[in-house]
Amino acid sequence: MALVGGIPGILAAGSGSLCGMSPFSRHMSSLPLSHIRLTDPFWSRWQRTMVQNGLLAQYDQLVKTDRLKNFERVAAGETGGFEGYRFNDSDVYKWLEACAYSFGNGSLEPSADLKTKVDHTIGVVACAQMPDGYLNTFFQLMHPELRWRNLSMMHEMYCGGHLIEGGVAFFDATGDRRLLDVAIKFADHVDSRFGPGKRRSYCGHEEIELALLKLAKATGERKYRDLALWMVEERGKRPSPYLDEMIDEESIKLAPYMEKMLCKDGEYVGEYLQDHAPIREHTEVVGHAVRAMYLYIAAAELAMDMDDAALSDALTRTWRNLTHRRMYVTGGIGPSGDNEGFTFDYDLPNLSAYAETCASIGLVFWAHKMLEATGESEYADTMERALYNGALAGISLDTSRFFYDNPLESRGRHARSPWFGCACCPPNIARLIGNVGHYAVGVKDRCLLIHIPVGFEATMELGGVKTKVRAVSDYPWSGDFTLYIDPERPVDGEVRFRIPDWADDVETDIPGLEREAEFESGYIVVRKRWEPGDIAKFKIEMKPRWVAANPRVKDDLGRVCLAFGPLVYAAEEHDLGFEPQLFAADLDIDVAVESATMLEGIQALAVSGVRDGLEFADQLYAEVDDVQIQEAAAKFIPYYAWNNRGANHMQVWIRRL
Amino acid sequence: MALVGGIPGILAAGSGSLCGMSPFSRHMSSLPLSHIRLTDPFWSRWQRTMVQNGLLAQYDQLVKTDRLKNFERVAAGETGGFEGYRFNDSDVYKWLEACAYSFGNGSLEPSADLKTKVDHTIGVVACAQMPDGYLNTFFQLMHPELRWRNLSMMHEMYCGGHLIEGGVAFFDATGDRRLLDVAIKFADHVDSRFGPGKRRSYCGHEEIELALLKLAKATGERKYRDLALWMVEERGKRPSPYLDEMIDEESIKLAPYMEKMLCKDGEYVGEYLQDHAPIREHTEVVGHAVRAMYLYIAAAELAMDMDDAALSDALTRTWRNLTHRRMYVTGGIGPSGDNEGFTFDYDLPNLSAYAETCASIGLVFWAHKMLEATGESEYADTMERALYNGALAGISLDTSRFFYDNPLESRGRHARSPWFGCACCPPNIARLIGNVGHYAVGVKDRCLLIHIPVGFEATMELGGVKTKVRAVSDYPWSGDFTLYIDPERPVDGEVRFRIPDWADDVETDIPGLEREAEFESGYIVVRKRWEPGDIAKFKIEMKPRWVAANPRVKDDLGRVCLAFGPLVYAAEEHDLGFEPQLFAADLDIDVAVESATMLEGIQALAVSGVRDGLEFADQLYAEVDDVQIQEAAAKFIPYYAWNNRGANHMQVWIRRL
Repeated sequence: MALVGGIPGILAAGSGSLCGMSPFSRHMSSLPLSHIRLTDPFWSRWQRTMVQNGLLAQYDQLVKTDRLKNFERVAAGETGGFEGYRFNDSDVYKWLEACAYSFGNGSLEPSADLKTKVDHTIGVVACAQMPDGYLNTFFQLMHPELRWRNLSMMHEMYCGGHLIEGGVAFFDATGDRRLLDVAIKFADHVDSRFGPGKRRSYCGHEEIELALLKLAKATGERKYRDLALWMVEERGKRPSPYLDEMIDEESIKLAPYMEKMLCKDGEYVGEYLQDHAPIREHTEVVGHAVRAMYLYIAAAELAMDMDDAALSDALTRTWRNLTHRRMYVTGGIGPSGDNEGFTFDYDLPNLSAYAETCASIGLVFWAHKMLEATGESEYADTMERALYNGALAGISLDTSRFFYDNPLESRGRHARSPWFGCACCPPNIARLIGNVGHYAVGVKDRCLLIHIPVGFEATMELGGVKTKVRAVSDYPWSGDFTLYIDPERPVDGEVRFRIPDWADDVETDIPGLEREAEFESGYIVVRKRWEPGDIAKFKIEMKPRWVAANPRVKDDLGRVCLAFGPLVYAAEEHDLGFEPQLFAADLDIDVAVESATMLEGIQALAVSGVRDGLEFADQLYAEVDDVQIQEAAAKFIPYYAWNNRGANHMQVWIRRL
Repeated sequence: MALVGGIPGILAAGSGSLCGMSPFSRHMSSLPLSHIRLTDPFWSRWQRTMVQNGLLAQYDQLVKTDRLKNFERVAAGETGGFEGYRFNDSDVYKWLEACAYSFGNGSLEPSADLKTKVDHTIGVVACAQMPDGYLNTFFQLMHPELRWRNLSMMHEMYCGGHLIEGGVAFFDATGDRRLLDVAIKFADHVDSRFGPGKRRSYCGHEEIELALLKLAKATGERKYRDLALWMVEERGKRPSPYLDEMIDEESIKLAPYMEKMLCKDGEYVGEYLQDHAPIREHTEVVGHAVRAMYLYIAAAELAMDMDDAALSDALTRTWRNLTHRRMYVTGGIGPSGDNEGFTFDYDLPNLSAYAETCASIGLVFWAHKMLEATGESEYADTMERALYNGALAGISLDTSRFFYDNPLESRGRHARSPWFGCACCPPNIARLIGNVGHYAVGVKDRCLLIHIPVGFEATMELGGVKTKVRAVSDYPWSGDFTLYIDPERPVDGEVRFRIPDWADDVETDIPGLEREAEFESGYIVVRKRWEPGDIAKFKIEMKPRWVAANPRVKDDLGRVCLAFGPLVYAAEEHDLGFEPQLFAADLDIDVAVESATMLEGIQALAVSGVRDGLEFADQLYAEVDDVQIQEAAAKFIPYYAWNNRGANHMQVWIRRL
């Protein structure tokens, strides 16, 4: 039994090589979806419920809101009559991508009904594509003559990017290449019009860049990667291609709000869509949060691919700015609703936090790319934070209702909706949930990496030897993690197990291990000859902990946040019997962990403190002596689970006594 | 020496008759401007500085922004070329009204330069009036054919109301009736078109109602009062006259945003401009705060005039809602910038507080009317609160810069401006400062009422006997108040001296008083035969006090506010050397009062407590043990005086240990 005391600061500072790879060289990858199946109660429930309930509910919305009808109209050769927002096609593609992961992740056999609906949808999408590969139902129905006329605001490439992601996912998960073929045809269409020596422009909403990189991998076609690189590198250079769009009357008619979004004091700035500076000069996150994430996902992949130090430096700088100065404790990002995005350092208001679900999802993706590139646990720490808190709060436990924005305080008015006019979040969280295994576990040559200790079953090549791996876990409720490693024959290899930044200790129990486990880059490294039937046990100490924010975050001064394992907790009026804003926690009294059957089996945390009485006369102000305080107990629940029992008051950052 | 312990709750609850008058009968009035001169250092400085500096600076702005030019163009028979907002005429009128008070209040002889500018302005205004009495330079220059076409949004009567107030003030203060004649002609024009049997409509921005009541008093013409009453009573009845405007294309062109302001879910509601319900059915303050105040000022005057119980009840209800649930501790009202107005009970955010300067000024006016109607000190308490804090914060100490909105916290970005595109606040605070005596001191038959213990010299009739009164005071820095009462011959009369809601004790020292002073309606009542040369001394105990908010105000939970006398205090970064948000006050350590030469001679308050250190690693979140606290001292200044030494951090509601 070896004890490894992880001290996050020290671990994060070290950048030791991992499996012999230098930072920002591509040195790890994920398991193919069909090779890993999540088995822990937490994620298997989410994935099953999504197949049983969520995906069908979303399909109904696609029908009800005419998102599918738009495709059907185009396929039928109609014109006019587009319904909804100009970017609504993307929701259909993202839903298909979510279905792909759910079909491939082995959680539950999808119903024939769901399969039929997917089949129908792919068919309609394919039929709507133009002979030249173009596909965007808004322009096809409403303004066929104006396609590619306004790239800054009209989302044609954005939608196409999601088509590509959907196509790649469907092919990967099921071998069905119908959607991939549509995607390739669209990508070729874009490639024929944009790029070096062709038209110089890129989409106002980043997305196609990361999608083209996926397509390049799926097809082995380098031209998609080159086009993505060109788009990432052209962005932010001057003159911006959007200047022409801002003086083109037809373009202005498409998006009259363009100037307001892109200019400041009459001058073009482009911060809103990260067109403010070339990527290698970026220092901080600006503008629309989801767009920024999607750009950096592609850029991180390219930095790995090219071993590009300047690009890596820019990404590291910008990452630090985001995670050290502009990220909620939940992994929510983008505090302002005005630009759906970033403001300034330490500006993290709780009640008005925008913290879009999609932005936290984007953060999971970007963190995963940075993790792949460096092997440093700090990226996995943030990935886990955003996954279990900011992103997962975006969806109800029954997978049928959604938050678009995720405030850290509610005064009773915030509640999830079954759908939105701009419905980017529902299919986005669905595709994340379907594909969690991809982010939790990594492989590289002789190395198995446990970024997040989920329970799973997988088959993989470990040092060239086919190996079955089974992980038993009740994470996030328990830190006990047991790996059963079963190579076909003995193999020298290593297991890397992340020491979470929030953990004081991780114990290991690995029979037959000759030397003590080491740690590198924030991971426990177990190097040994693995025999068939081997076991490795890890135990992360889990106990409730009070977290404080940097005092520069003015909204959190005098406040604390309760956390347990990877989960941020919240106090909800429903459990307290009074509004949690009235509560002040006594940090000197131990917090008790209580298993609860409610909310699909959470661990609740019992906190002691005081509450302000409400027996205040019907007046606003009184001398302090008149104020009444009484002892009070409060039960906290995981932040992701709030608002599953009706709209009510909620608070993450609690006053401390 | 008699000691009177005032217990605000009890005092406020009692509604004993005052000078024999019942509530809501007109039973007190103010001294004519030319009969009272303020002499205390505090107000005499404000009034002098306004004459020396502020009024001239505002005139420069009226010229620079073409507000005067608009009148000159009309006077010259030009068309087109109107500059600025459609309601800009009102700023010229309010400036003239402010000049009228400053000319009359005896603080300082105005310069020949200022007098010439006033003369010129009145002349230009008079020349711009049309033969039929109409006057509004926006419509005269831009849309002469569309006058009175859109009353909900276009402010024609609003501007006219300020013309009337200016005309009356000028006549009252100086005997010059040129502007009054213009005002009468305008009022007759309105009266010829609107009213019973004529067109049924009223202005979207209330103002002319209260102005017509002033005009009725000044001229003795009852028709103006009747028109005002009709406008107040028609408002909120159904169908709203604005429904027609919302389907009139020409009207819509004038104000395309009309529907957005007036409707909710496609239905007309009219809350924004208090057209939601007939006045006698009002229960809470809604919509645009300044508009609401101006409506209730007129309504309170009418309730007094008519002894109308239903109207009085509605006003009392609505007043209670405002002051018991929707008012900042500063007397700021209207928390939201979205509607420049009210939201819901206890919604009083500090950082984003709108709390428009004009709204606090309107609150002073309404409170004064309620005080005139009832004699109850609670109205004077609120009047004083709004006057010394929420309103006065709207102007810099040198009277040249202004806040439009008055947050109770600043993170370094809020600073006064010399002027605004919509410049209602600067001349509004100027007219309030010029006329403070009107609000501070009242008379009625045998009774002299000291609502606010300012220093002054006045001549008045007391029980029919000409009496000189001199009050020596250093309020708000001291609670010592000495009255020298000098009737030409002995007279039976009474002095009423308000016991502030914040005062624990008021001592009296009145030589020759045979029986102990009584108290009624929150006032100390001294009844005696006053002889030439009499003296009456009052001493309000003044000490720093910590105030808490009703726990339903979520933004103030765990926080306290420091007050001294009528003043709310604030902690400003400039004095602390660190951002006041970092500070938490130790309420167990006495607050020390320090006379300070800075900021025109304030009393500063020295507070002990702790501050969060900023030696936090470059990370956002850490376990609580890592947080550093250190002892700290903080000097607080009056809220009205903040931001006179540059933009910096400020906070009113301070965390308590």
